[in-house]
Amino acid sequence: MNPFEIIITLKGFMTAILLLSCADQKGLVASIANFISDNGGNIVNMDEHVDSYAKMFFIRVEWEIGGILFGKDELHSRFKPLAEKFDAKWKIEFAEKKPKLAIFVSKYDHALQEILWRYKLDEFDVEILSIISNHTDLATLADNYNIPFYHFQISKENKIEQEGKEIELLKKLDVDLIVLARYMQILSENFVSKFPNKIINIHHSFLPAFIGGNPYKQAYERGVKMIGATSHFVTNDLDEGPIIAQDIVRISHKDSVKDLVRKGRDLERLVLAKALHSFLDHRVLVHKGKTIVFE
Amino acid sequence: MNPFEIIITLKGFMTAILLLSCADQKGLVASIANFISDNGGNIVNMDEHVDSYAKMFFIRVEWEIGGILFGKDELHSRFKPLAEKFDAKWKIEFAEKKPKLAIFVSKYDHALQEILWRYKLDEFDVEILSIISNHTDLATLADNYNIPFYHFQISKENKIEQEGKEIELLKKLDVDLIVLARYMQILSENFVSKFPNKIINIHHSFLPAFIGGNPYKQAYERGVKMIGATSHFVTNDLDEGPIIAQDIVRISHKDSVKDLVRKGRDLERLVLAKALHSFLDHRVLVHKGKTIVFE
Amino acid sequence: MNPFEIIITLKGFMTAILLLSCADQKGLVASIANFISDNGGNIVNMDEHVDSYAKMFFIRVEWEIGGILFGKDELHSRFKPLAEKFDAKWKIEFAEKKPKLAIFVSKYDHALQEILWRYKLDEFDVEILSIISNHTDLATLADNYNIPFYHFQISKENKIEQEGKEIELLKKLDVDLIVLARYMQILSENFVSKFPNKIINIHHSFLPAFIGGNPYKQAYERGVKMIGATSHFVTNDLDEGPIIAQDIVRISHKDSVKDLVRKGRDLERLVLAKALHSFLDHRVLVHKGKTIVFE
Amino acid sequence: MNPFEIIITLKGFMTAILLLSCADQKGLVASIANFISDNGGNIVNMDEHVDSYAKMFFIRVEWEIGGILFGKDELHSRFKPLAEKFDAKWKIEFAEKKPKLAIFVSKYDHALQEILWRYKLDEFDVEILSIISNHTDLATLADNYNIPFYHFQISKENKIEQEGKEIELLKKLDVDLIVLARYMQILSENFVSKFPNKIINIHHSFLPAFIGGNPYKQAYERGVKMIGATSHFVTNDLDEGPIIAQDIVRISHKDSVKDLVRKGRDLERLVLAKALHSFLDHRVLVHKGKTIVFE
Repeated sequence: MNPFEIIITLKGFMTAILLLSCADQKGLVASIANFISDNGGNIVNMDEHVDSYAKMFFIRVEWEIGGILFGKDELHSRFKPLAEKFDAKWKIEFAEKKPKLAIFVSKYDHALQEILWRYKLDEFDVEILSIISNHTDLATLADNYNIPFYHFQISKENKIEQEGKEIELLKKLDVDLIVLARYMQILSENFVSKFPNKIINIHHSFLPAFIGGNPYKQAYERGVKMIGATSHFVTNDLDEGPIIAQDIVRISHKDSVKDLVRKGRDLERLVLAKALHSFLDHRVLVHKGKTIVFE
Repeated sequence: MNPFEIIITLKGFMTAILLLSCADQKGLVASIANFISDNGGNIVNMDEHVDSYAKMFFIRVEWEIGGILFGKDELHSRFKPLAEKFDAKWKIEFAEKKPKLAIFVSKYDHALQEILWRYKLDEFDVEILSIISNHTDLATLADNYNIPFYHFQISKENKIEQEGKEIELLKKLDVDLIVLARYMQILSENFVSKFPNKIINIHHSFLPAFIGGNPYKQAYERGVKMIGATSHFVTNDLDEGPIIAQDIVRISHKDSVKDLVRKGRDLERLVLAKALHSFLDHRVLVHKGKTIVFE
Repeated sequence: MNPFEIIITLKGFMTAILLLSCADQKGLVASIANFISDNGGNIVNMDEHVDSYAKMFFIRVEWEIGGILFGKDELHSRFKPLAEKFDAKWKIEFAEKKPKLAIFVSKYDHALQEILWRYKLDEFDVEILSIISNHTDLATLADNYNIPFYHFQISKENKIEQEGKEIELLKKLDVDLIVLARYMQILSENFVSKFPNKIINIHHSFLPAFIGGNPYKQAYERGVKMIGATSHFVTNDLDEGPIIAQDIVRISHKDSVKDLVRKGRDLERLVLAKALHSFLDHRVLVHKGKTIVFE
Repeated sequence: MNPFEIIITLKGFMTAILLLSCADQKGLVASIANFISDNGGNIVNMDEHVDSYAKMFFIRVEWEIGGILFGKDELHSRFKPLAEKFDAKWKIEFAEKKPKLAIFVSKYDHALQEILWRYKLDEFDVEILSIISNHTDLATLADNYNIPFYHFQISKENKIEQEGKEIELLKKLDVDLIVLARYMQILSENFVSKFPNKIINIHHSFLPAFIGGNPYKQAYERGVKMIGATSHFVTNDLDEGPIIAQDIVRISHKDSVKDLVRKGRDLERLVLAKALHSFLDHRVLVHKGKTIVFE
């Protein structure tokens, strides 16, 4: 990219965000702060966490890149030697570049409604490129928000083939994130492996309680006094992926399964929205099956 | 009991509480309300629940027995035909008769401290008759509150024998409730069967998540975003008994296992206290592994 | 109404709900239970509260009127003597008769969206007859749900006149409830007096904190660690009406006023929905500026 | 202090904590990180906040001072020029130096009990030097924990004089913090001015609701659906000081004022404990009547 383009398109300052994790070692914060300072940046936000048990270091830094005359690729190149010195996993994101999102749904509309409503309100810094479904029920809703709707009917027989087309589409769209907004199909291992830590699901229980199907019925039968919802990254272990957000609501003996579904719906919407906020603000790091979510 | 004694000892009115469950059928509330009215009582509190799925009826009624000239046994005899007509499980308690409690502890003091502190403040309408432990660490604390402390050291070899002595003691004391205030032994099937729905435990997780040992470590390793505590009746299925009260507290990646222990401790104290309040106010009914807790 | 019509239109049983309050006195529950039983009814739900400080009695009873051969008016006539004997305030509602609702809005769409979305999902047992606004921004949204939209532009000069027309419309529609879903006008004393305990507002603070305008800014400036929302009946004392539902969400020093607006929005939606559920299920009684909300 | 002493007394590393606030300006994080790095330190924790509205910068840095051969005073001297350059308010604390605490109480024991119980469990990194009271009721409790108890009886007439003696004692003890654990006296302006941002109170309402006396009664009369507790620094505006921690609990029409007192008591204990944790871990900064509390 031509650096002069950047300068022209900027209204104020361009903001960059570094997410980095590596083995804990001396001088990490100073090195990173100096790198930013030496490259003309001004730190506006820094969150850092040392896991002294795992001896790991995690950081999120947000800084204004004021008046610089080089582009993003150049910034990557300049930071690379430092990252290699630390043997770090890292990425630098730019606040003005909106992540690209695809949403998978089936028949329930509440999670999708919630995302679209917040999207329209500009709550999420995201570009929603497509809504993908194994049913056609929510095509109208997608239409109301002018978002392309793709129908991939799924059966036992055609699953691999249809997923292949979905993957092709998603790769073509170059999506940064896939949200399963109550998508009622289990994705194949192959699909999941194509998007590591890039698929977010909402499960309607406080995981690890009530893994699998019909968690509200499970909750009703166990007689718990609260139900929950959990948003997590999808891995190939069902409902075992890194948890991003959770919440609960109180219930009582008066609540039928139908009441749990109704009360849980509100929870699902809010918990998924919270997880999306964290992801889209580049606040989530993953390490060994767990998340660090900087608030 | 001699009815004249009652009249003499009463300061104001005597209050009776009926807890009853039976198959749902027509006219239950009216029949019960009439029984109370016909026997000179005045209802001050009525909670009722119909489980339309299980077709069961549950009720708690509290009434003032004003100026009656008959005793408790007579009240039982009079109610019995009605209860038999409904084929009901029932009991009538009298508010001025304090339930008798025994507390089992090991080494942790927080749950015990909490109960004793509330006891001293007269929060609980209860008589604490004994503190029983497999260790001697908390003898001093028992002593501070002038409550008899019994030490039954437990090993694999002597467990059945020692439990036998404990059962003997508890029967002699005629306890209405046993509280396991972080008692670190699993009670035998024989012990549990002697006190059905009369043993309350506090488990340090939001059950059914993290059953069994070391739930805080399990929670830490799973990376959940909240931890919980659950108070439940003890049955012979470990951590599977009817749940009385639950609550959770938020945690984050910053919390070590030690932090979870500290935060969870506060939760355990409050959740156990809440369950005790419900039980001691005669607000808990059990049906098929679940509780009805009238608030 | 012709009783034979009822029998014909009933699929299962017809359900009636009594809400009653009066000075506490002996035999109230028995009298009411007997009335229901004597008139062929079967109680399915009874909630009762005695305020021993105010010496007041409050009750909500729900019963199935099975196979009766008389209509609603007849039921009213039959209950009247009993109610008069108790000197009670009371009403009997019929579950199959949906309350009629009018919604007032200005420019913010979130509270309206939430109600309409739940309405479409059949969460609320209600008939929404009109959306009334002092702006035209939300006409399209009303249209999407096929609900008549009325625009009454309000200025200092025309307020009384326009409110007159609104009152006329509401009386013509015979509404049971008016919801102010972030309506940014203060209703006149005259308007409010026409609909006592029939106007529900959502205020974006945990009342009585931050009464009046811009509560999020007030909250930000005070530096509170949580913000709230309160749904209450409208009286002629601004934000002083009986509270139906409240909730809060945690905030921190990181949250700007804009963040509070965003977080509060979620709260407003849920708290208003909760208050509506309570009202529409006939669970709310008002006494001396406070509510009894049976859960 | 002689640096060699430090080295000798250290078991592992000595940890230092910097709390600093100043007008936002470029390069602050890098300068501070470099200072620490240049002086042989290793950052283990950094929390930072830029208030872009007030254009202020706040930071908390915790670092290990490994194997250094200079003392605390030297560290202060070395940091001073940097702080002056930024025109910052700042302090450096050392984790191994426990803050000194005095607790003021009257007759209620719950807040004191809670602090002492946690103190004994080593939850708080603090040294409790004295319990001061205008009554003698809690002398025994102080005694149980071997903490000196001072009785200063307060009347309208002797208040200034007695406070003078209290100030003298507190200055002699060189306390870092005064906790009002339900102390039922209003401190004079003179007293408060002697300990700016060093007096923490627990108020039994969700401030700013129900300022002043008897907040539970106020809450009962207003008919709120939740009650709260607020821990805040004491200033000369009653209940208007910077808020450190708040929480709420749900109540209903069933709760009498006595119930509110009981439920609120639990809240007061937890909220005060939370505020103490934050303060004693050096996580609280104050700016213009509000706190920044790093979690």
